[in-house]
Amino acid sequence: MYPLSAGLYAPRNRWYVAARSSEVSRAPLERFILNEPVVFYRTEAGEPVALAGRCPHRGYPLGRSRIEGDAVICGYHGLRFEADGRCSHIPSQAIIPPNCRVKAYAVVELWDWIWIWPGEAETADLARLPDHQALGLTDPAWIKRPPLYWQVEGRYQLLNDNLLDLSHLTILHADTIGGGDVAGTEERHEEGEGWVRSLRWIPKATVTDWVRKSRGVEGEVDREIMLTFIAPGFHHGHDRYFPAGSDPVKDAPMLDIRIFHAVTPATLTQCHYFASSAVDPATYALSARFPPDPASAIRIFTEDVEAIGEIERLLGAVGEFQELPLRSDVHALRGRRMLENMILAEKPADAGALRSVS
Amino acid sequence: MYPLSAGLYAPRNRWYVAARSSEVSRAPLERFILNEPVVFYRTEAGEPVALAGRCPHRGYPLGRSRIEGDAVICGYHGLRFEADGRCSHIPSQAIIPPNCRVKAYAVVELWDWIWIWPGEAETADLARLPDHQALGLTDPAWIKRPPLYWQVEGRYQLLNDNLLDLSHLTILHADTIGGGDVAGTEERHEEGEGWVRSLRWIPKATVTDWVRKSRGVEGEVDREIMLTFIAPGFHHGHDRYFPAGSDPVKDAPMLDIRIFHAVTPATLTQCHYFASSAVDPATYALSARFPPDPASAIRIFTEDVEAIGEIERLLGAVGEFQELPLRSDVHALRGRRMLENMILAEKPADAGALRSVS
Amino acid sequence: MYPLSAGLYAPRNRWYVAARSSEVSRAPLERFILNEPVVFYRTEAGEPVALAGRCPHRGYPLGRSRIEGDAVICGYHGLRFEADGRCSHIPSQAIIPPNCRVKAYAVVELWDWIWIWPGEAETADLARLPDHQALGLTDPAWIKRPPLYWQVEGRYQLLNDNLLDLSHLTILHADTIGGGDVAGTEERHEEGEGWVRSLRWIPKATVTDWVRKSRGVEGEVDREIMLTFIAPGFHHGHDRYFPAGSDPVKDAPMLDIRIFHAVTPATLTQCHYFASSAVDPATYALSARFPPDPASAIRIFTEDVEAIGEIERLLGAVGEFQELPLRSDVHALRGRRMLENMILAEKPADAGALRSVS
Repeated sequence: MYPLSAGLYAPRNRWYVAARSSEVSRAPLERFILNEPVVFYRTEAGEPVALAGRCPHRGYPLGRSRIEGDAVICGYHGLRFEADGRCSHIPSQAIIPPNCRVKAYAVVELWDWIWIWPGEAETADLARLPDHQALGLTDPAWIKRPPLYWQVEGRYQLLNDNLLDLSHLTILHADTIGGGDVAGTEERHEEGEGWVRSLRWIPKATVTDWVRKSRGVEGEVDREIMLTFIAPGFHHGHDRYFPAGSDPVKDAPMLDIRIFHAVTPATLTQCHYFASSAVDPATYALSARFPPDPASAIRIFTEDVEAIGEIERLLGAVGEFQELPLRSDVHALRGRRMLENMILAEKPADAGALRSVS
Repeated sequence: MYPLSAGLYAPRNRWYVAARSSEVSRAPLERFILNEPVVFYRTEAGEPVALAGRCPHRGYPLGRSRIEGDAVICGYHGLRFEADGRCSHIPSQAIIPPNCRVKAYAVVELWDWIWIWPGEAETADLARLPDHQALGLTDPAWIKRPPLYWQVEGRYQLLNDNLLDLSHLTILHADTIGGGDVAGTEERHEEGEGWVRSLRWIPKATVTDWVRKSRGVEGEVDREIMLTFIAPGFHHGHDRYFPAGSDPVKDAPMLDIRIFHAVTPATLTQCHYFASSAVDPATYALSARFPPDPASAIRIFTEDVEAIGEIERLLGAVGEFQELPLRSDVHALRGRRMLENMILAEKPADAGALRSVS
Repeated sequence: MYPLSAGLYAPRNRWYVAARSSEVSRAPLERFILNEPVVFYRTEAGEPVALAGRCPHRGYPLGRSRIEGDAVICGYHGLRFEADGRCSHIPSQAIIPPNCRVKAYAVVELWDWIWIWPGEAETADLARLPDHQALGLTDPAWIKRPPLYWQVEGRYQLLNDNLLDLSHLTILHADTIGGGDVAGTEERHEEGEGWVRSLRWIPKATVTDWVRKSRGVEGEVDREIMLTFIAPGFHHGHDRYFPAGSDPVKDAPMLDIRIFHAVTPATLTQCHYFASSAVDPATYALSARFPPDPASAIRIFTEDVEAIGEIERLLGAVGEFQELPLRSDVHALRGRRMLENMILAEKPADAGALRSVS
């Protein structure tokens, strides 16, 4: 489905961020992941659990049910499902049919968020998780912002597309992180197994008042913006400011902001969006002088969330359309193709293909 | 459609409760019945009338029109339809085409509610109405509660299923009419022409504080729960409490509550729910000491209404699913099969089958 | 689609009223026209502009974008589209692909409203616009009311049908402009190239208190009601009151109200409705004694708007139906047929046919 090719939705055998750690507790949380209801909760030991969110007996949502011990008890007829998905108790009968179980998803809690593998748990491949230590997320030297979360009223690839084409910074975020020359600066594209990267070096960058105030940047600066997309839904990169005339390879930035975005399909036309950032201690010291303004950060992301919602609104009202590709889309289109190939590689089991689209 | 077999919706040549008596007046009431708009009102003599709710001329809802004498006057161009559905006046012409009429439904007012026969009125069979005298509803010796009403955001068979499997009392109504041992008690199934019955005898029943307080039950008790489903949408039964050690056949209960539920398809994914109860004078004397709490009764039904809404929500979001049948479903599945056979018996006219489902 | 024949929606190569002059400004206005999003704004010189409302690059609504000079700048990646639809700037590249453009609609501002031609602008035929001078709209001798506007929750042909069958005045507007004998009076039908006209002469007309008060009519009167439908969506006519016993051809009315309605398809099931009226100076002098009450006028139109919404509601809930045609529909059915022929004449390009209906 648009903006992917007809019939393609999302790969199942990959990791996606499903929730912030703080959202998953001893009370059940219902969240749609790749168009399936999932119930999230924690065991008594604090381990996150994700089970298929619909009771196989009569279809009552386990996300509206009760947690007891390490299990979820269906709120309708009381079937008890353990953290591994196995049914351990049926109030109305002693024998438990062996097929009475719900899918247990592989989940991994790393840093402040929880990853889910929508495919079969046995196939979950830990090696495919982004390296949180290398990213700085689990490195105590880096100062992180707790992730923010939005449920976006638009299909996930629209948000991936947004992050794959940073030329939008100049317009959509003109008053905050934009700066007039992001769109006009040549983009360097790199790619590897499962990822694509965009790099821009902007000498004597135009810097908005917002950046100057919230990030403590003064005088003439050079700027480097990098964003790496790890398909199907993780983006990490940095936004670096250097004294004017620097060499981005040899010189150290005076301000180094690492940025993290996670995009997860919720329903066919909605997605989950998680965003965070981290700064090194030197940057943090700067920020301490110019305290970061959480409201401002929220404002930037909200601009993206609303833009995606607007595009989805027109898709819903008048249907798909033929895009006009620009030069700035080369990077994004490679990212899309990589994603489509991931989905197609999951066939012939049709795992990642769209199963029910109107 | 789920939970019935594909293509099956509801039988037309049966009685359904359409409204409480108090809802039908000299002002028109629009209500969807089996996915058709119907207008209900009373004649000057007070007789209830049900006519097809869409004017055949230009489709204006008669339920938004005006009652005059025994007729409804379409609010758009003034066509006047008598209580028998015949058009008696067209403001813009003298001659009334013979096919200018709306369907007049057979309706019967019994006790405090009004029954409708969605099939052709000529085929309406009064012998198929439940015997209200035998049920205690029209027996002055029994003290009745006026029926409650909900429009439920779920397809009607989900609510029939709910009432056909009382093992849900233990969980969904754990704090009110549940008691821990309903689900665990062997169910006796009986059936006959057009009905199925579930019976449970629970010696030394666990009784909730709610029952003790609201119904004045003290000490150890035996409990008998019976519910009879008269397809397609009427359920009656009793909830009886005996001194511990009683014989349910020979001994008299100290508390005998008769319960009545009526379930009527509204649209494909909504239904009407009517519920009432009755007690004998002895029970009523008890209740007088422990006054019944209407808010509590409403709370119980609301638990069911919300559960059905939750199941429908998932059906709407992610579609149908394959149920896992349990032993406790034997009774319900027989009820469903009876209902499906009723629908199939109405073919080849396709009367009861689903005519337009997306 | 109902009430037109299956597959027919609306002709594209005709003029429709799109907006009131006061609605189109230097800020963008998004409005759906024939199921397509359109952005309306004014150039610096004040000329109205209508461009396709979806950016061809990534589908962001231009109606949520920014006007700069005579151009609209897409709010997402900054593509700049001039008033002729041509892209004049892409922030991320120097070369502008020749196919980077949006459709520019032909628009004409006449009197207090703006007309749009949904077909290709080159085919726009000014000769097909109603003669505003002859209608009195641009004649300073006539006193006009500024047009009122409603977005109607019903497909446009329902509103055309409403205006094509004035027998509804007697019922729907019984308390305002109705009067008991409109429906009962013989209608004279006339038609020509692209128009149909309905005429009624009502000697000794029943006049409502509302007309007497708001229009200053006293004593016995004769009334003439005329309405001409210029397909696909413009209606003009008059409501004239004469001293009883007048000859409508030779005598002058004591009160002459000209009425104007414009109906424009918005989405498949919504439309735009514009309405105005004008009086001659003599009538205005009368009205000055009995000041017109804008709230009353709004009330009349709102009765129609709500009726159309009610019909659409049933169409949405239970689908199309087979109409029962009456004698009073002869005029309306001729109007419909004229409209259908207009649509069919636009084939084989399929321009006016329905392209995506569920």
